[in-house]
Amino acid sequence: MGVVLLPDLGTEILIPVCAVIGIVFSLVQWYIVAQVKLSPDSGRSNSNKNGYSESLIEEEGLNDPAVVAKCAEIQNAISEGSTSFLYTMYQYVGVFMVAFAVLIFVFLGSVEGFSTKSQECTYDKSKTCKPALATAVFSTVSFLLGAITSLASGFLGMKIATYANARTTLEARKSVGKAFIVAFRSGAVMGFLLAANGLLVLYITILLLKLYYGDDWEGLFEAITGYGLGGSSMALFGRVGGGIYTKAADVGADLVGKIERNIPEDDPRNPAVIADNVGDNVGDIAGMGSDLFGSYAESSCAALVVASISSFGINHEFTAILYPLLISSVGIVICLITTLFATDFFEIKAVKEIEPALKKQLVISTGLMTVAVAVISWVALPSSFTIFDFGTQREVKNWQLFLCVAVGLWAGLIIGFVTEYYTSNAYSPVQDVADSCRTGAATNVIFGLALGYKSVIIPIFAIAVSIFVSFSFAAMYGIAVAALGMLSTIATGLAIDAYGPISDNAGGIAEMAGMSHSIRERTDALDAAGNTTAAIGKGFAIGSAALVSLALFGAFVSRAAISTVDVLTPKVFIGLLVGAMLPYWFSAMTMKSVGSAALKMVEEVRRQFNEIPGLMEGTTKPDYANCVKISTDASIKEMIPPGALVMLTPLIVGTLFGVETLSGVLAGSLVSGVQIAISASNTGGAWDNAKKYIEAGASDHAVSLGPKGSDAHKAAVIGDTIGDPLKDTSGPSLNILIKLMAVESLVFAPFFATHGGLLFKIF
Amino acid sequence: MGVVLLPDLGTEILIPVCAVIGIVFSLVQWYIVAQVKLSPDSGRSNSNKNGYSESLIEEEGLNDPAVVAKCAEIQNAISEGSTSFLYTMYQYVGVFMVAFAVLIFVFLGSVEGFSTKSQECTYDKSKTCKPALATAVFSTVSFLLGAITSLASGFLGMKIATYANARTTLEARKSVGKAFIVAFRSGAVMGFLLAANGLLVLYITILLLKLYYGDDWEGLFEAITGYGLGGSSMALFGRVGGGIYTKAADVGADLVGKIERNIPEDDPRNPAVIADNVGDNVGDIAGMGSDLFGSYAESSCAALVVASISSFGINHEFTAILYPLLISSVGIVICLITTLFATDFFEIKAVKEIEPALKKQLVISTGLMTVAVAVISWVALPSSFTIFDFGTQREVKNWQLFLCVAVGLWAGLIIGFVTEYYTSNAYSPVQDVADSCRTGAATNVIFGLALGYKSVIIPIFAIAVSIFVSFSFAAMYGIAVAALGMLSTIATGLAIDAYGPISDNAGGIAEMAGMSHSIRERTDALDAAGNTTAAIGKGFAIGSAALVSLALFGAFVSRAAISTVDVLTPKVFIGLLVGAMLPYWFSAMTMKSVGSAALKMVEEVRRQFNEIPGLMEGTTKPDYANCVKISTDASIKEMIPPGALVMLTPLIVGTLFGVETLSGVLAGSLVSGVQIAISASNTGGAWDNAKKYIEAGASDHAVSLGPKGSDAHKAAVIGDTIGDPLKDTSGPSLNILIKLMAVESLVFAPFFATHGGLLFKIF
Repeated sequence: MGVVLLPDLGTEILIPVCAVIGIVFSLVQWYIVAQVKLSPDSGRSNSNKNGYSESLIEEEGLNDPAVVAKCAEIQNAISEGSTSFLYTMYQYVGVFMVAFAVLIFVFLGSVEGFSTKSQECTYDKSKTCKPALATAVFSTVSFLLGAITSLASGFLGMKIATYANARTTLEARKSVGKAFIVAFRSGAVMGFLLAANGLLVLYITILLLKLYYGDDWEGLFEAITGYGLGGSSMALFGRVGGGIYTKAADVGADLVGKIERNIPEDDPRNPAVIADNVGDNVGDIAGMGSDLFGSYAESSCAALVVASISSFGINHEFTAILYPLLISSVGIVICLITTLFATDFFEIKAVKEIEPALKKQLVISTGLMTVAVAVISWVALPSSFTIFDFGTQREVKNWQLFLCVAVGLWAGLIIGFVTEYYTSNAYSPVQDVADSCRTGAATNVIFGLALGYKSVIIPIFAIAVSIFVSFSFAAMYGIAVAALGMLSTIATGLAIDAYGPISDNAGGIAEMAGMSHSIRERTDALDAAGNTTAAIGKGFAIGSAALVSLALFGAFVSRAAISTVDVLTPKVFIGLLVGAMLPYWFSAMTMKSVGSAALKMVEEVRRQFNEIPGLMEGTTKPDYANCVKISTDASIKEMIPPGALVMLTPLIVGTLFGVETLSGVLAGSLVSGVQIAISASNTGGAWDNAKKYIEAGASDHAVSLGPKGSDAHKAAVIGDTIGDPLKDTSGPSLNILIKLMAVESLVFAPFFATHGGLLFKIF
Repeated sequence: MGVVLLPDLGTEILIPVCAVIGIVFSLVQWYIVAQVKLSPDSGRSNSNKNGYSESLIEEEGLNDPAVVAKCAEIQNAISEGSTSFLYTMYQYVGVFMVAFAVLIFVFLGSVEGFSTKSQECTYDKSKTCKPALATAVFSTVSFLLGAITSLASGFLGMKIATYANARTTLEARKSVGKAFIVAFRSGAVMGFLLAANGLLVLYITILLLKLYYGDDWEGLFEAITGYGLGGSSMALFGRVGGGIYTKAADVGADLVGKIERNIPEDDPRNPAVIADNVGDNVGDIAGMGSDLFGSYAESSCAALVVASISSFGINHEFTAILYPLLISSVGIVICLITTLFATDFFEIKAVKEIEPALKKQLVISTGLMTVAVAVISWVALPSSFTIFDFGTQREVKNWQLFLCVAVGLWAGLIIGFVTEYYTSNAYSPVQDVADSCRTGAATNVIFGLALGYKSVIIPIFAIAVSIFVSFSFAAMYGIAVAALGMLSTIATGLAIDAYGPISDNAGGIAEMAGMSHSIRERTDALDAAGNTTAAIGKGFAIGSAALVSLALFGAFVSRAAISTVDVLTPKVFIGLLVGAMLPYWFSAMTMKSVGSAALKMVEEVRRQFNEIPGLMEGTTKPDYANCVKISTDASIKEMIPPGALVMLTPLIVGTLFGVETLSGVLAGSLVSGVQIAISASNTGGAWDNAKKYIEAGASDHAVSLGPKGSDAHKAAVIGDTIGDPLKDTSGPSLNILIKLMAVESLVFAPFFATHGGLLFKIF
């Protein structure tokens, strides 16, 4: 054992300070974005502040007030639609939240029959801990806090995105670089706000709970796991509801608009166009924000709960136990420096520089973070300590823990690069898929599916290596900090991820505002890079989800007091088999939901085209609100069954079949779900970019497949449409499925350990 | 313990007699099929022998010699193409077979350094067993026997199918019922020949090995496992090579013929049409024959190897240890009776009676078999005995073992029914998919994928229940006999499965011979039922594969002398994760192979249409041989990488990472692969039948989607084409993947246990 270099006071200062820096930085970015005025008179004056000369004046007058006013109007419509949808969703989710909070309280309270007496500790039987009832109360409180923070994260992200989209469009008139920078800054607002907010709320919650729990850290951090559950359960509804919303609108709009009526994407004559653009904000932005916040909260909780029963917790080493939060804190600062490379140190001048710039973000943040983690591991950890390892304490050195974090961090980078390779149209995989469009939609789909399957290989090996290394060094704590390592650059990850839907919206606004073709080309180029970054973001989300769930799974097993999960017992094996099936069941539900909702949307759009005279000619406006309503109703209704599947499975399995079977279910859904999730997002991203590759016609090969409207392009559009629910609904929801079931099992572990396995007890 | 009612002599008589009955029965069926003459003069005289009156005389003269001659000619072309492909494949596979045989000998021989001295037994250390070198020799011999039997099974099936297809076409002129009966009888020839042959070869091999091994049953049945490995490794190449062949031709033919040139399926003007029909025989028939033979051989071997270290083996109870073979023996008799219900007791008069008749086959065989198993369990087993259960002996009653077999048998029936529900166009799932074609190919694909995912749920629960029951009663032996239960009606299963491709070919021949539309309608109806039965057959194959692999996995773990496979150890968990990825890797390879081969085919077909004058008009013949060559070359070349992946993974993982990681890989690929396999076959089957549903136009709903050539129909054709590689290449190959890796691990277990895990030993 050794001493910790960083004094507790330092920790108490460092964490909140870093969080505040993150919040301030995000406000500064917001301020800069806000300088792009949406009121016509000041449309130009801002850009000098960014330090760029206006060398690229568009054919359209920059000061054309009609265009600016039009953009502002469309932005308002999108913003209102998004806000109204989220409010509607929150009403339903709010009811669930309260009901589930009651459930947590009742289940956990019943463990010791709602007794208010102190009890012996779970792990260290010689000590006295706070009553189970307290854990019930504070788990419930943490759950609510996590849920509210998650909703706030999604909501804020949406607000920023709908604030920035029209501004990106307007900047695209000047140059692709300026448009990029607005979109990226806006992404950064979201990224930093979310990372800082999540950290701060968690930190304050810990401090407040410490007032009650005092030295009972075991109980304290057990209660804190509710925070992760709250975060992830909201993320589930956000991802599923938002995902169904966005893809019903997108697929519906495309099927009638692009395929039947042969009008461009985002054409203002298409009645579903506003719903489609709203969808990007509520699905890709709000959903993804909640999702990554959930991952972050869960991996922190998983690490903390294991740490609390290791030497850090036993010896009450405040700085060491907060090691996970310290990593996240310095992560914010590192990401801040990284962001400057994209916004201030370099300037994007051409379309082809966008993807390298985003890739550079990944490399820089990973490189800097590796150094930062080394420093933190050196100052915040004793040189030697013990970690709880399924019943025994294992000795770990600080450099080993550094390696655990680093391996997660670098695995994230590898996943990012592989994802980029498979989904960017700069490389052969997407180009091959585009080429297969020559022979029609069928070969496009076959090649696209094969690409997605293939793209799983390297990420899985990367995850496997991280798991092996971190597991071998520091058991489940190692896994949890590896996940934190992958998520330590979350602010940058979110920034480049949010950049995608903002650019997508910017393109939509350009089209709807009737701006020129060359502007649309620029926003399309931004969007194509956005598809890749979205896929990278999903790759991170999935990779970290795999690690997080494994860590939570380990914590659950420890808490449920079983020491082995032997595949060769019938209880575990059937759990494994059924668990591996759950992602399929879940995907079937969500894809069918998107399909049915899209069919309703198609009927409505067709009806409007047929019944509203002058719509096709552009003389009458379509009824946008009706389409928004269809998407809203469908997503609210359809998010309940998949939500119930995920939330109820651990409860039912744990209560009826017990912890062994539940362990099997968690392991099965983890190893199976991660594969489907990666392949679904990459297949979808590749199809989208294969289509964009043909449309852009930037190489001889691409020209030979195009132009828009050619048979090959039509085949590519079909692939893109199929990919929509895969990449934006079922795929990204799956990583929540695996995390959420694991964290829920952990929170309810005391109950399952006491009262679970009813069915086997009866027979 | 109790006495066995059936004397050993009875067993010695019963098994070969049942096998001979099966062979004789199949020859009788062949004789009846052969009565349909392919020489014009006697085209009519036969049918009275079947007992049917010729009430439905077609508009075409039944004796039109030109039509009959044309059919005979096409049949010859198909038969020659199939034979030539299989011979080519066998040359390559033969090289592999010899090389792998050497590998087995060297690996297993090296366990005790090629010593010829007797050694202490693995399980009962007090006894002396034959040397490891003997196991090496006889495992190699068994491997070769299994491989040759597997190839023979596939080859014979192909021969029968190509003998029966034109005869089915000719009978379709008379009535749909007569065509059905010819196709079904031919399927039965294959089913019975294969079941009887597999049983007989295995029985004789056991008797011969017994001459050497004497009372060392442990060694005897360890060597016998090579038989399963041989069977399955040939099945792998058969399924993959044949699958790529058939789908490259099918997809290539459809893409140009149906979509670009707008000519019907199987039009003789299409240069790929012969290759397409050859493909049905080498892929669906020969591949599937090898596959189910492999399952049968492996489940028998898994049961025998566990039995040999249980009380049956320890006490040398000959009848009891051959319980698995006795079940298969009575299975042949039961299936014989069942077949009579389809061919003699009832008569099909209308199209809508086909599916119920086939379904009845499943119900009758399952019902009768349950009784037969009860009888066999009563007479062939002592009332109480012990079964090896990971190091300990567990007491089991004979009625418990009966339940194990019965639960497998009935799970098979449930899987069959669920598969039928999801893939037959008589029910709403396929009709919904057809309906989604209204909005184009994209929704068709989304709905189809969702259908496949959903169709996994009930089969997985059925398998899980079987596993739980049989595992709880009799550990791994229970699982093995549950698999045998599912496969006990293999003769019937194969009959209804082989019926599909035969009908498909019959339709092709009708089209190519220029027969009337109404005949094509009849063969299409037969074929639609065939798609469903093919899916059912695949369901059985996958369900049994899951059980078989688990049993083999258990046997492997026992042999490798590890007592737990704990998910919560890094070695096992990374195995689990990577194992779950393998089916994706494998599918990516096979799908890409089909896609690339299909592109080559498309180019060739297009070239011929463009360059051969008079081809479109039907005045010139296309160059069929070139297309056959493309399919042959592509499949031979492309089957190697996926084959290598499956065959090398256990060797590499076992040698470098050791038995724990290999256990993880086996469990992971099992639980993940079974899901993809089921969903892929059902999705493909559903798309095919959704297309047929629109084409047949048998309901108002279907009429509203059609006719052929409508937009909805075109969308359905795209779905069908995408489904082709899913249902006939990657999906069905996956069950071989999971079985084969398990049986290979079992065969090499002595080597891994001694020399495995090099990497961990070094570090």
